[in-house]
Amino acid sequence: MNITLALHRGALMCGDRTVLVCDGRKIGWRELKTRTARLAGALRALGLAPGERVAMLADSGIPYFEFHYAVPWAGGVMVPLNIRLADAELVDILNDSEASVIIADAAFGDRLATLRRGATTLRHAIVVGGAPEALDYEDLIAAAEPAEDVRRRGEDLLAIMYTGGTTGRPKGVMQSVGNAVVNLLAAIPNMEFREGMVYLHTTPMFHTAGSARIYGTTTALGVGIVLPRFDVPEMLRAIEAHRVTHTLLVPTMINRLLNSPEFAKTDLSSLTNLSYGASIMPEALLRKALELLPNVRFTQSYGMTELSPSAAYLQPKYHVLEGPLAGRIKSIGQPIHTAEIRIADEYDRELPHGEVGEIQVRGPMVMQGYWRQPELTAQTLRGGWMHTGDAGYMDAEGFIFLIDRIKDMVITGGENVYSGEVENAIYEHPKVRECAVIGLPDADFGERVHAIVVPHPGEDVTAEEIVAHCRALIAHYKCPRSVDVRHESLPLSATNKILKTELRKQSLAAPAGK
Amino acid sequence: MNITLALHRGALMCGDRTVLVCDGRKIGWRELKTRTARLAGALRALGLAPGERVAMLADSGIPYFEFHYAVPWAGGVMVPLNIRLADAELVDILNDSEASVIIADAAFGDRLATLRRGATTLRHAIVVGGAPEALDYEDLIAAAEPAEDVRRRGEDLLAIMYTGGTTGRPKGVMQSVGNAVVNLLAAIPNMEFREGMVYLHTTPMFHTAGSARIYGTTTALGVGIVLPRFDVPEMLRAIEAHRVTHTLLVPTMINRLLNSPEFAKTDLSSLTNLSYGASIMPEALLRKALELLPNVRFTQSYGMTELSPSAAYLQPKYHVLEGPLAGRIKSIGQPIHTAEIRIADEYDRELPHGEVGEIQVRGPMVMQGYWRQPELTAQTLRGGWMHTGDAGYMDAEGFIFLIDRIKDMVITGGENVYSGEVENAIYEHPKVRECAVIGLPDADFGERVHAIVVPHPGEDVTAEEIVAHCRALIAHYKCPRSVDVRHESLPLSATNKILKTELRKQSLAAPAGK
Repeated sequence: MNITLALHRGALMCGDRTVLVCDGRKIGWRELKTRTARLAGALRALGLAPGERVAMLADSGIPYFEFHYAVPWAGGVMVPLNIRLADAELVDILNDSEASVIIADAAFGDRLATLRRGATTLRHAIVVGGAPEALDYEDLIAAAEPAEDVRRRGEDLLAIMYTGGTTGRPKGVMQSVGNAVVNLLAAIPNMEFREGMVYLHTTPMFHTAGSARIYGTTTALGVGIVLPRFDVPEMLRAIEAHRVTHTLLVPTMINRLLNSPEFAKTDLSSLTNLSYGASIMPEALLRKALELLPNVRFTQSYGMTELSPSAAYLQPKYHVLEGPLAGRIKSIGQPIHTAEIRIADEYDRELPHGEVGEIQVRGPMVMQGYWRQPELTAQTLRGGWMHTGDAGYMDAEGFIFLIDRIKDMVITGGENVYSGEVENAIYEHPKVRECAVIGLPDADFGERVHAIVVPHPGEDVTAEEIVAHCRALIAHYKCPRSVDVRHESLPLSATNKILKTELRKQSLAAPAGK
Repeated sequence: MNITLALHRGALMCGDRTVLVCDGRKIGWRELKTRTARLAGALRALGLAPGERVAMLADSGIPYFEFHYAVPWAGGVMVPLNIRLADAELVDILNDSEASVIIADAAFGDRLATLRRGATTLRHAIVVGGAPEALDYEDLIAAAEPAEDVRRRGEDLLAIMYTGGTTGRPKGVMQSVGNAVVNLLAAIPNMEFREGMVYLHTTPMFHTAGSARIYGTTTALGVGIVLPRFDVPEMLRAIEAHRVTHTLLVPTMINRLLNSPEFAKTDLSSLTNLSYGASIMPEALLRKALELLPNVRFTQSYGMTELSPSAAYLQPKYHVLEGPLAGRIKSIGQPIHTAEIRIADEYDRELPHGEVGEIQVRGPMVMQGYWRQPELTAQTLRGGWMHTGDAGYMDAEGFIFLIDRIKDMVITGGENVYSGEVENAIYEHPKVRECAVIGLPDADFGERVHAIVVPHPGEDVTAEEIVAHCRALIAHYKCPRSVDVRHESLPLSATNKILKTELRKQSLAAPAGK
């Protein structure tokens, strides 16, 4: 199946009905298809060769949708760029991927000069809204001849998505069209996507989850409402104004949503389905969400860029606190119907139910590998299994319980402490609004468990209270040995996960005493 | 994705819960997986090489399920055999496919000697229930070592399904694992399959629709109730006894179901979803079904073996007689989210909306080709499109209106008459229970439109009444020039379609007067 099929089918079946709304601008199915064909034509006219890379540096919006269809339509490969990265990091990625064209929002126009100086293969810059020495996005579309769709499919490379890697060379995850197709086919029933649904795009479109939702919701013939950037009041307004039925939020966003003063004043009655994922969901937060959004069907999705991105789902029926299905809410779910998941030890031996090891995944959603990094690819995909780097265990019914990123595990006095477990305990404290647990170097213990805690506005909490609270819930050695109480929100990544790397850096620079 | 995944996942997630019920026998998920692994082990021990063909000649049942998983598990290719074929036809297929093993029900045991004499590549026969000079199915499973699953996937050949071809060499449709996988992923949301549903298998499992439902319902973690052969009273009893939620019926079966004296006495309240397809649905019959089964969600599926088997669906919401969505009920539906469909003329030029031409399909459900028939394959798949041989047109919203099989079209006095259109008109007559329209040779007109009509029990109808009735509904030249009124049911194919080839043969042997 070719990745642009949804656009052809939507234009045929829905004609001029609205497919997207962003910042007051509406666009219909047929118009989206026409603009896509023209943008693809423009890329071809600029000399884009088959398989050549096109980068994008932009907030979420209609052009990001058009990028997702026009680049494969023209036969190119997408390189979506994380807008939070520094210029030097972006230059590294542009050079690593050998991108020949970059499309950017005008807001990033002033950075383009720097990027173009550093990125040796870049031939053209296209700017939405225009910029000096760049091609104007709308002019280009207006002037271009529509291209024939080359219909990239199967093993054809769809995107190189750069991920994580805080040190060293950037890691470019190679996602094939087949990877994206199998993900969207699996997402439609599991996320209960249906024709005519109104989907709020909250996830940055440079991220695999944002990208996957573009393809999934469009294939389901849903209407998309696009938030250029995540913002709680904007999101609440959009849900009410557009009668949004489906959206995806990461746990931090759900926390901020529920704690927002606007929450109680907003009509959220249209919302039927809320999926969440991308980082560990604290139990206390999930209980609160179930209580405050009693009519919403929650689905947890577990995955990562290398899994395009999903491999497990926790279905709505398991989001209950009582009855025979209770208890599964602590799980990240069961393997999707397209995925095999096992728990293995460090020698890749499968572990029995209940034992903690690495979560490993096999199936058509596993990436093709890391771009031009055959050794890292071979290591990550050894034995045919994607090594997620996540620690967890599986029960006898296939429910997977995620403990932590293996690299976020704190080794203290020879004991393994999973930061997620400690965070879960701290979140049970009624005064706590946000928290994060990291390992800091310690002369006695090798590493010590360190907590950063943000109380609710108007509340205060002491380190002693937090430690005493934890001791009632988890083993002594897992409890924080130092606590930093702050009154400002914790730093977030571009995908709205709490930025532990940043907290670690801050804590090392100015260690907070217990 | 490998085709056996559903079995691994079901055994993990559902353990000993029942997956299948047939003739009072129940089998659990884990047991089905264990038996499959052992049957695969037995096939390997018999020397089955990768890609070698294993045929099956049996009624629907648990062994047919095991065949669908064990053959790919062992690395083989399935050749399911139509049980209605004559020995000579079966021998042709066994030789054409070069099958090395055949599995059969005891009921077919006495035909095995003939088949083995004629089929030169057959090395082993395995019989469920045992037979002289054959291996016993259960003994083999009991004694075998379980095999490792070779996990056939993607382009690997899954099955050769022999189809139609009333004259000449049999046509073996090559279905890949990827064909079957994309079909099941698309079917799950469109057929509203869900975990725990109770699916009644009514379609013969040697047929692509039966095969597709094995994979689809199992992947959705549904429970299957298997009817060895189609029989209306048995079906009604099974729906009531097992609280069946989903099933698939061809129009003839729906007609017989609704006309059955047991219908009104049976509790069908569990039935939520009924899909139908495989031949043209007369409108009058569909209206009656909607009226008599008001709480059932109907979905029409359009396809054929070469499409693995589906390319279009008519959603439940269009099964209405009034309101803004009415009128679509005359359509076979819109392209599925994995398919592209166009209407083209005999030179493969795409036709505008509303014009009648051949329905052509492109996408990942299109077969790999006809086994060892490269010329026929090239002709049928020319230009990358599957040429269905069906005539129809498409409206501006992508709804497809099927007119007829091109080969069932009657050319009379230079006019094209589609038999489906005439049958639709005849079915509107209140006394008509079944009918079929064929073309018969005619000295004046080249061909003439001939109708065979079966009235309801206790009713009678004359040729004149039928012709007068038709003249009120359709053009004069389309009305039957001869009518044969019969009081016995029309002959059906193994897939329960009315057998027009047989009717044509009978009518030519003893032409019925007007």
